[in-house]
Amino acid sequence: MSARWIVGVDIGGTNIVVGALPEDGSELVGVKKIATEAQRGPKHVVDRIVALIGEAIQAVEGTGASRSDIAGVGIGSPGPLDRKTGTVIETPNLGWRHFPLRDLISNAVDLPATLDNDANCATYGEWWLGAGRNVDTLVGLTLGTGIGGGIVLNGELYHGVNDAAGELGHTTIDSTGRKCKCGNYGCLEAYASGPAIAARAVEGLESGAESILPDLVGGRLEGITAAVVYEAVVLGDAFAEEVMKETAKFLGAGIANIINSLNPAMVVVAGGVTRAGEHLFRPLRAEVRRRAFKHAEEACRIVPGALEGTAGVIGAAGVFRTERLRTA
Amino acid sequence: MSARWIVGVDIGGTNIVVGALPEDGSELVGVKKIATEAQRGPKHVVDRIVALIGEAIQAVEGTGASRSDIAGVGIGSPGPLDRKTGTVIETPNLGWRHFPLRDLISNAVDLPATLDNDANCATYGEWWLGAGRNVDTLVGLTLGTGIGGGIVLNGELYHGVNDAAGELGHTTIDSTGRKCKCGNYGCLEAYASGPAIAARAVEGLESGAESILPDLVGGRLEGITAAVVYEAVVLGDAFAEEVMKETAKFLGAGIANIINSLNPAMVVVAGGVTRAGEHLFRPLRAEVRRRAFKHAEEACRIVPGALEGTAGVIGAAGVFRTERLRTA
Repeated sequence: MSARWIVGVDIGGTNIVVGALPEDGSELVGVKKIATEAQRGPKHVVDRIVALIGEAIQAVEGTGASRSDIAGVGIGSPGPLDRKTGTVIETPNLGWRHFPLRDLISNAVDLPATLDNDANCATYGEWWLGAGRNVDTLVGLTLGTGIGGGIVLNGELYHGVNDAAGELGHTTIDSTGRKCKCGNYGCLEAYASGPAIAARAVEGLESGAESILPDLVGGRLEGITAAVVYEAVVLGDAFAEEVMKETAKFLGAGIANIINSLNPAMVVVAGGVTRAGEHLFRPLRAEVRRRAFKHAEEACRIVPGALEGTAGVIGAAGVFRTERLRTA
Repeated sequence: MSARWIVGVDIGGTNIVVGALPEDGSELVGVKKIATEAQRGPKHVVDRIVALIGEAIQAVEGTGASRSDIAGVGIGSPGPLDRKTGTVIETPNLGWRHFPLRDLISNAVDLPATLDNDANCATYGEWWLGAGRNVDTLVGLTLGTGIGGGIVLNGELYHGVNDAAGELGHTTIDSTGRKCKCGNYGCLEAYASGPAIAARAVEGLESGAESILPDLVGGRLEGITAAVVYEAVVLGDAFAEEVMKETAKFLGAGIANIINSLNPAMVVVAGGVTRAGEHLFRPLRAEVRRRAFKHAEEACRIVPGALEGTAGVIGAAGVFRTERLRTA
């Protein structure tokens, strides 16, 4: 009997990534990333996803497998969403409301499909085939435009009572602090997301800090992104290093909260910020040690993600595998 | 066949509470509370617990049951602890280190016993027979000298990888805020525990706030406790009401973090602070609504505990029931 294959789909506000894996996760084929083009409407986005799934299926067939070896499609999408009905309840970035994403895709490609939160999928991917593959209980944080979170407890994604669990970027670390896009004040995301890191750097420069950062963006401070800050850190810029240390402090407070609450074996920190490497992780681990209970802190490793760019696709496929192939 | 009975033991730094329940939780007999007298050493405390268990067994026999109907003892203790070995790793309040509490008690009373964290037990009690008895997934907070937390997911206590989960009083809500006894800065406990509520009230009075509080303590501000603040609230004191509103804001930030992380169906807030009733819960719910994601917030009820003074005993017995009677 030939292996069953699963297509994973990772939908973001900026890009859609698709790829396919055999059930045993032994390889990843047909990975392709295209722009989401959300501004062109929901139908356009679904058409793009469906086309990309078609290409992934061709890639599977290129390995010698046949179309009938494709078991289904795992979809990761921004939420909140309802896993049971496969409906995205609301995503401001994509402009969807009560959108039956799973069945639209499933019907278009004539395959069964599952739907889960994108950050849950990224965490599940790291658990299945990435940094957490030898661990039962872990928490994932993905630092990008926002901060996504996912929770795996005893080898299972934890969803909460209405699929809203794991919004760890929106936990308050400074109750009277920076306003967050979600409406709350002092969320971790308001300090340690990519745009927040860039904003703190620009604020420092505007207050007169000396740095090579302005040179890296031709003097246009609005061109500073988190990636530019990482670049400056690696180039040895002291101010950029300071910005990373601050980031580590904020992240450390958030991760200490996770450790004192959930006592996981691992926290996986993924996303572009990990390019700063030990410039981030060394002060981050020190801050967590200062804040968390020793007994819980000692039981927890804090590590970078191992599946940059593909954790979401792998995890979405992993969710399909668990929900549709393992319960049969 | 007659019902099997379980003795529950709730050990705190100040008091020990013991009582007994039949396996179906239909009644609670022999409830007795005595001072812990920790300063007289571990052996003394264990002797007091053992004596109290003996009295609870007599109370069970008083219902017509026989000694052989007692299935065992569930013990709740401050932690951190190791449930598997029944050892308390360290409790500064009681002066215990690597203390084999479970087996000392089990041997002394010649009954099997289980050990779990006191705050976990209190939460489990509310889940089994209290405010959360119709709910699968809930989080408990007990506001007293400290703030204890417990997490019940899908009807099971969640312990984490080394029994350290649920320390929700030690989650940071103001990363540069008040120093906490645990060594961290800005913990929820540093703002909303009984002593923290009293300290904030005293600070306000020392800054010139007008209030009946000084009258209630004969002018000695050091006599102000959280209970005195509740009393003043109920008497209509505007300043005390303000202190409660602030407490609600801090608690609201902590509970919004719990809701965005764990998406529970209920958060049970127990302890003396609930005597403030709607003076606390109304602004608390409003603050959570301001901070948490709507989808998760709407799925979660925030309610006072229903088992004042006995949640820990009931939950400790409940842990024994689940671990020793239900897995057979």
